[in-house]
Amino acid sequence: MTKPEFKQLRRAYGFDEVAIVPGDVTINPEQTDIDLKIADFVFPIPIVASAMDAVTDVNFAIAMSHRGGLAVLHLEGVQTRYDNPEEVLAEIVQAPQAEVTARLQKIYSQPIQENLITERIQAIKKAGAVCAVSVTPANTKNFAPLVVEAGADMLFVQSTVTTARHISKSYKGLVFSELCQSLPIPVVVGNCVSYRACLELMRTGIAGVLVGVGPGAACTTRAVLGIGVPQVTATIDCAAARDQYYRESGRYVPIITDGGFRKGGDLCKALVAGADAVMLGSIFAQAKEAPGMGYHWGMANPHPALPRGTRIKVGSTGTLEQILFGPASVTDGSQNLVGAIRTAMGVCGATTIQEMHAVEMIIAPAIVTEGKSWQIAQSGS
Amino acid sequence: MTKPEFKQLRRAYGFDEVAIVPGDVTINPEQTDIDLKIADFVFPIPIVASAMDAVTDVNFAIAMSHRGGLAVLHLEGVQTRYDNPEEVLAEIVQAPQAEVTARLQKIYSQPIQENLITERIQAIKKAGAVCAVSVTPANTKNFAPLVVEAGADMLFVQSTVTTARHISKSYKGLVFSELCQSLPIPVVVGNCVSYRACLELMRTGIAGVLVGVGPGAACTTRAVLGIGVPQVTATIDCAAARDQYYRESGRYVPIITDGGFRKGGDLCKALVAGADAVMLGSIFAQAKEAPGMGYHWGMANPHPALPRGTRIKVGSTGTLEQILFGPASVTDGSQNLVGAIRTAMGVCGATTIQEMHAVEMIIAPAIVTEGKSWQIAQSGS
Amino acid sequence: MTKPEFKQLRRAYGFDEVAIVPGDVTINPEQTDIDLKIADFVFPIPIVASAMDAVTDVNFAIAMSHRGGLAVLHLEGVQTRYDNPEEVLAEIVQAPQAEVTARLQKIYSQPIQENLITERIQAIKKAGAVCAVSVTPANTKNFAPLVVEAGADMLFVQSTVTTARHISKSYKGLVFSELCQSLPIPVVVGNCVSYRACLELMRTGIAGVLVGVGPGAACTTRAVLGIGVPQVTATIDCAAARDQYYRESGRYVPIITDGGFRKGGDLCKALVAGADAVMLGSIFAQAKEAPGMGYHWGMANPHPALPRGTRIKVGSTGTLEQILFGPASVTDGSQNLVGAIRTAMGVCGATTIQEMHAVEMIIAPAIVTEGKSWQIAQSGS
Amino acid sequence: MTKPEFKQLRRAYGFDEVAIVPGDVTINPEQTDIDLKIADFVFPIPIVASAMDAVTDVNFAIAMSHRGGLAVLHLEGVQTRYDNPEEVLAEIVQAPQAEVTARLQKIYSQPIQENLITERIQAIKKAGAVCAVSVTPANTKNFAPLVVEAGADMLFVQSTVTTARHISKSYKGLVFSELCQSLPIPVVVGNCVSYRACLELMRTGIAGVLVGVGPGAACTTRAVLGIGVPQVTATIDCAAARDQYYRESGRYVPIITDGGFRKGGDLCKALVAGADAVMLGSIFAQAKEAPGMGYHWGMANPHPALPRGTRIKVGSTGTLEQILFGPASVTDGSQNLVGAIRTAMGVCGATTIQEMHAVEMIIAPAIVTEGKSWQIAQSGS
Repeated sequence: MTKPEFKQLRRAYGFDEVAIVPGDVTINPEQTDIDLKIADFVFPIPIVASAMDAVTDVNFAIAMSHRGGLAVLHLEGVQTRYDNPEEVLAEIVQAPQAEVTARLQKIYSQPIQENLITERIQAIKKAGAVCAVSVTPANTKNFAPLVVEAGADMLFVQSTVTTARHISKSYKGLVFSELCQSLPIPVVVGNCVSYRACLELMRTGIAGVLVGVGPGAACTTRAVLGIGVPQVTATIDCAAARDQYYRESGRYVPIITDGGFRKGGDLCKALVAGADAVMLGSIFAQAKEAPGMGYHWGMANPHPALPRGTRIKVGSTGTLEQILFGPASVTDGSQNLVGAIRTAMGVCGATTIQEMHAVEMIIAPAIVTEGKSWQIAQSGS
Repeated sequence: MTKPEFKQLRRAYGFDEVAIVPGDVTINPEQTDIDLKIADFVFPIPIVASAMDAVTDVNFAIAMSHRGGLAVLHLEGVQTRYDNPEEVLAEIVQAPQAEVTARLQKIYSQPIQENLITERIQAIKKAGAVCAVSVTPANTKNFAPLVVEAGADMLFVQSTVTTARHISKSYKGLVFSELCQSLPIPVVVGNCVSYRACLELMRTGIAGVLVGVGPGAACTTRAVLGIGVPQVTATIDCAAARDQYYRESGRYVPIITDGGFRKGGDLCKALVAGADAVMLGSIFAQAKEAPGMGYHWGMANPHPALPRGTRIKVGSTGTLEQILFGPASVTDGSQNLVGAIRTAMGVCGATTIQEMHAVEMIIAPAIVTEGKSWQIAQSGS
Repeated sequence: MTKPEFKQLRRAYGFDEVAIVPGDVTINPEQTDIDLKIADFVFPIPIVASAMDAVTDVNFAIAMSHRGGLAVLHLEGVQTRYDNPEEVLAEIVQAPQAEVTARLQKIYSQPIQENLITERIQAIKKAGAVCAVSVTPANTKNFAPLVVEAGADMLFVQSTVTTARHISKSYKGLVFSELCQSLPIPVVVGNCVSYRACLELMRTGIAGVLVGVGPGAACTTRAVLGIGVPQVTATIDCAAARDQYYRESGRYVPIITDGGFRKGGDLCKALVAGADAVMLGSIFAQAKEAPGMGYHWGMANPHPALPRGTRIKVGSTGTLEQILFGPASVTDGSQNLVGAIRTAMGVCGATTIQEMHAVEMIIAPAIVTEGKSWQIAQSGS
Repeated sequence: MTKPEFKQLRRAYGFDEVAIVPGDVTINPEQTDIDLKIADFVFPIPIVASAMDAVTDVNFAIAMSHRGGLAVLHLEGVQTRYDNPEEVLAEIVQAPQAEVTARLQKIYSQPIQENLITERIQAIKKAGAVCAVSVTPANTKNFAPLVVEAGADMLFVQSTVTTARHISKSYKGLVFSELCQSLPIPVVVGNCVSYRACLELMRTGIAGVLVGVGPGAACTTRAVLGIGVPQVTATIDCAAARDQYYRESGRYVPIITDGGFRKGGDLCKALVAGADAVMLGSIFAQAKEAPGMGYHWGMANPHPALPRGTRIKVGSTGTLEQILFGPASVTDGSQNLVGAIRTAMGVCGATTIQEMHAVEMIIAPAIVTEGKSWQIAQSGS
């Protein structure tokens, strides 16, 4: 009998399945450098807020920029469909749980107003903040000129999965190499999860890549479509593409791991896996300044035919300042994210994020055990 | 000391343990071709409804056929034992939980009436639908001529495990090669899960294979007999057999993964694992048109000596139309199955189901975590 | 730097982590031969009841023997310490949960009466049953002559871990080769779990080996001492020892997997792993005939300094007849064990238990999922 | 395309994922030798109590020493910040749960009093006990002379992660080789988890190494920083470093596995993994003599900016005598730890702890199953 050829499956890992190994050298956390560079922009902290309506509005974008990070404003959400997004957000937050999906579908069917795109961008710029905005591939050609004209600093082109090659009979796909050449501002593209897809995207001349499709164990994209790669493996693979592209081009294109984070330790793990920065949704939705007022929902939830996810209550647990820099009032790792990153780098002996990429990581599943609460108190000083 | 020879165990995987990796190319979902071909029949959608009393009756078979799929009528269930199956189904549904198994054992001990076999088949054909019926191996020789005469289009021969070689002293085993030669209609056989068993079955001349024995982690066959192979590995192995048989014979025999599905993503995973189509029970039992009226039970539950499974309430969550084509009113992936398949194929850059077979799949266990609900909202647009 | 040498760990598997793969051939279950042979004894069914006070008393031993199996009477439990064991058993059963361990410690501190050893053995023999009794290694030299004289057919020497070589300054260890030569009846020894320990035991001339130390995930021996090997791996390893011993000696010494069983499927898995028979405690404690009256406790629970386990309520779910031969009144696999074994063998195409040893087994963890109850009904007829 | 280079991840294991395999020889537990040697000190039992305020005060240190073990007094906790630590401990224990972290932060901000360091050490010495004290690296140079002068026998230098090389611009890092040469008493350092970090530490001349960073699945250090190595792998790696250092220097430096223990079996597993001793916190916090009065909290909980862990109620379950030597009044393995170690060594045929290092260990996850309670009673005598 001929030896059968079976399809091979590779094991992939998520945040809960890995842990960082301390280094042979330790350094003082204050000596760590955690800058994020995208094209010519330098951000003192490598943390980006998601382009989601419950996370980023004009005020949040300004607040993040002033603290050294970046928040991306979604140009296809409520901010550009409504003159008065606060009212609409309040309506979403107050809707009974059973009606949320239908209500969102209705709210997001309202047309996008071009004048609001301009208005929102100018409001951010006027405050002296870096302005990054997000559009989907299908709307990129339409909105890109407007975005540039309004003064945005950076364009994110984002959908569940975006590739350098999209095939469609009905419309000519977006060609990223043309887009990058035609625009005077850097373009960050996502999301992708594999080595080849990431490498192809980088070769089009883009300035950054968002990594993550269906991250997390219970992600709806994974439930509905079966698609998704756990974030640690996705980041490792795209980091390998970045390093390969750097070797072949001399250009270093940062990768930003997007989604699936629940606590400070997850951010540190993403950096060790190879990320240059992290993009957070849920954690920022908990900020007192977040437009979601303690609630959070995905931008795929209003999909007219295949809605995914739902509105969830995350609570307002602290200020943006506390979430980023502490002092932490909780001990679960959801506050003082920058402190956590610097402390972890100190313990790993990593002076820069690129040195953090070289730190050892192990597979060590976080099995939930009965004795869990015991172990919490067991760690030393 | 002689080096000991230990029995080797291979790792097998189920739907919850794998995920699909997006492609390097994406295509427009509308451009995907998801036809299922069994012998000379072409079905526009690769979804088959199980031969179970809670799923398929005459009306359901007609409804599925008219929508481009196929539903298989079990010829050894209540439909052919009773003139008035609706009354009997109502009795099953209304029985107190503690008495269900005993009640089912009694109901299914009633003899099968040959005239009802004819009647049911003719009712389906009269409506212009494709008519597929199912029998167990022990009854195949008896019923096959009747089935053909009544005008059925396709015969499914199905039991927990069916092999090309069955050994019995008391009766001469069914010889599939003889059966296929003697019947003018295609024969689909199941269930099997291994490369060799599937290859042997295909070599008898059958038109399709049902894949799946004791699928799912908590399957009763696995609890009672210890037997079962998770569906992803079973499908990968049988797909290898199909490809091998195609290489040696030039004939392409489709494999249909049967059982263990809980959501749209599972269907997509089965296709990536190598399935040409999927057979669903529980999901269709939730259709408003299903004869089980919101309940579901396995055909092994009435077994006189070794009953397995039980009646469970699945609810009536939507119409067949919604389940197949949406729009989804829920976000858990149990509706708009065809939309999910096409969307997943688009994201994977697969134009046909055969291209879907070549898509990368990873091992990525769906660990249930406390932070689960958070992650649901984290996915992008 | 010298390459460090790290301790290597091998992966071991338990019942819940594996599943049996159906065969390429199927056979009629009635044609299967499931005889167990120990020395010159032939038992029509390969199932042995544990030497535990909640499971085996004189009546139970008789009942098992008459049905074709074997039950082992513990000679160091209440049956030989008390004239009226029924009263003592009732006291154990009625003790408040918090006091059980202390009560058991007291009850089991009563001395063993030699005349009761003789009495119990003779009662079993008088009923025409095969009589097997169990002692610990420390008491074997004392009691063995008495056991033989009273007419027992078989001696089990059993402790948590028994090896062919025991080192002690205070007393001369039991030498099994001398014991076997001096006794006219077969000696079965346990428990062991590894290839080498099992092989060494077989070379002493014993007639059977009990396999299992700390089986099951939550076994107390494992919690208290850290010691234990999951039963599938233990059985595979000891089966390899048995086959090796057969090759070198021409003598086939059966191995009996002891402990960790919860349902019929587990028995089938033990046989595929290489067991010649299985020894059950908890499942038989549920028999209406069991002396534990719906309760069960381990023989390590009364340990004076390091008590392990506790009394648990298992309920009286059926008669011994039902548990062994059905018809099953439940669908969880705890009844009709013989039917389950024969059916599984049929599906695997195994005519004898030795053919069952050659059947393929896979690693397929039984992950508990939310959708569990759904999958129960999904299996075919 | 160049073959991509992906970051590699090694699998690591914790106590719940492994089990010990019994030996081919068994020995009488009374014949085992379980001495721990640190420099010239010999301790009859290889168990050390953690330097945590809920575990070790002067009285507990004396009680442990008199029973053959060792307890380490933390010199930066309440004992040296307050004249009347009992009152402060009572305040911690009585604080409402929601205020504990803030209260601890305040309590631990009180300055350390040098005279109390002297007083505590002298009180321990006066009772004829071995006196070991613990300081953090930052305070070591300050306190070390005082510690020696007061008469302490042994100095522990301990922080979450301690390496032989610490880089800081603001202060000159502690140089262990200089420290060891300048002090007349042995220095034990921790914590570390990797081969290289451990080897480097040993080469500085220290007398012992504490192994463990973020042990346990739910450790807060792992949640907040992402850092941690499960204890079995950490111990295996550091044991390899110890053996390598012994080969190159002829000096045997014991490693003490610190943290993550929940029951007797875990201690036995640590020894098989390669530990020379174990350091326990939570288990001793349950002693009636423990200063925490049934509560426990980590020394990282009061961290001013990044607090980790919390106060938990562990209860007072037995005397120190019972916990160490039994007889056990519970059956969960948290009492008679010495009995458990000796019994496990007997079953493994290990006469010394160094022979215990050579015993086989397997990977056998403790999956929590529904049938768990059943299996507890299944183990033999």
